[in-house]
Parts: sequence; structure tokens; C-alpha cells
Amino acid sequence: MIEIEASKDAASRTARLDAVFAALADPTRRAIIERLSRSEARVTEVAKPFHMSLNAVSKHIRVLEASGVIERHRKGRDHILSINTRSLDEVDGWIERTRGYWEERLDAMERLLRDLKKDHKLGPKDRKHGSR
Amino acid sequence: MIEIEASKDAASRTARLDAVFAALADPTRRAIIERLSRSEARVTEVAKPFHMSLNAVSKHIRVLEASGVIERHRKGRDHILSINTRSLDEVDGWIERTRGYWEERLDAMERLLRDLKKDHKLGPKDRKHGSR
Repeated sequence: MIEIEASKDAASRTARLDAVFAALADPTRRAIIERLSRSEARVTEVAKPFHMSLNAVSKHIRVLEASGVIERHRKGRDHILSINTRSLDEVDGWIERTRGYWEERLDAMERLLRDLKKDHKLGPKDRKHGSR
Repeated sequence: MIEIEASKDAASRTARLDAVFAALADPTRRAIIERLSRSEARVTEVAKPFHMSLNAVSKHIRVLEASGVIERHRKGRDHILSINTRSLDEVDGWIERTRGYWEERLDAMERLLRDLKKDHKLGPKDRKHGSR
């Protein structure tokens, strides 16, 4: 039972990654995300800088919503768009695992600890002339 | 002149991001990258675990090569595939900029420095009962 749930999770995770990567494979959609990474905004505000019809931008927005990268909520009459950072975290997590990100970070942490140890041996008075 | 070069650079960067994101929007292609993230490998080794023809896998490999995510070199008779981490770095860079990655890291660094300061006040003897 747990195995079935786990494979369901993996399948939906795979489908989410497919959708998010496909959504990001377009410069207009990436520009919309960049705009929303600064602050949430109304649909009309998001559409303004693009040299295309509101309808064309709306189509891109719907692709981003379907992929889960952005969310929409209503504030009175306005439709407000914002980024769902969790979906980007998932994509980023995949890339970082693939390019040995954690290995690099652990290496850096190790170097940091070695330096701290060295500083500790020097004692507090000498520390101000140390590397940090 | 410099402006033209800069905009050419930006255009090719945009095209590369389009191609890499599109290449990553497929579970077989992501699995190929995951395999190659462990070590470089021959085309036949990469194809083995997939329940599809060598021809079908080769098509996915060609998409990955065209996007710049993986590279191919010959070793005698064998075609060896490996990841080009620079292309993944570019994609990762875009995502990290978008989700305020550096802000988060600076916050974490600040917390770390605060903790170190606290430990320093406790003195070395008390440190082993500290939070680290």
C-alpha cells in the first residue's frame, strides 16, 4: 500500500517536473515569472510591457498556472498573480541533485570547519589577523 | 557595437535557456541526465535500463546534445556521453535569481554568524553543550 502511494507520488512529481520545465521553455513565460519574482501583480500589469495582445499574454499565464508555477487569487475586481515558489524549489532541487550541488556544499562546509578549527587554535587574540 | 554584441549574447542565452528547459521537460531525458551525473557512459550503457528501442533513446540523446546539456566524444569505437554542467549552471542560475536564492543564503549566513558570536561568548568549555 505504501509502495503504491510512493509510486503515485513519484508519478505526480514526474508530471509536475514535465509541466514546470515545459512552462519555463518560453522567453515570455520566463519574463512573466521574473516580473512576479519582484512582487505579485494584476494580470493587466503583468501584460503591459509585452508587445502582444492581452489575449496572447493570458494564454502564457494559463500555461504557467496549469504547471503550478504561478497562482491567481481575486482581490475585489482584480485578478492578482503571484509565484508559487514551491514548484520552482522542486525544479531547482532536481537540478542541484543532478549537478552534485550537495557534494560541493559539503566540501565548502568542511573547508569552513577546518578554517574555524585553525582559528580556534590561534586563539581569540590572534584571530583578528586570521583569514576571516 | 558593444550594445549589438550584448543583445546578441542575450538572444543566444535566451535560445539556450529555451532549449535546455524544453530538453528537461521529458522524464526519459531527465533519467539520462541522472545516469550521466554519476559518470560518463557509452550510448549503449545509457540506453540499457530503458524499456524502449536504442533508436528511441538515441533520439532523446540527440535532443539533449542539441540543447548543450550533454556532450559526446569518441574513444576508439565507442561514443562516450557526458554532462556539460555549464548548461545546467545557466538554468540553475536563472531559477536561483528568480526565487531570491541569494537573499536566502545571505540570511542563512547571517544566522550562522550570530550563532558563532553566541558560542564565542559562552567560551570553549561550554561550547560542547551548545546548539552545534
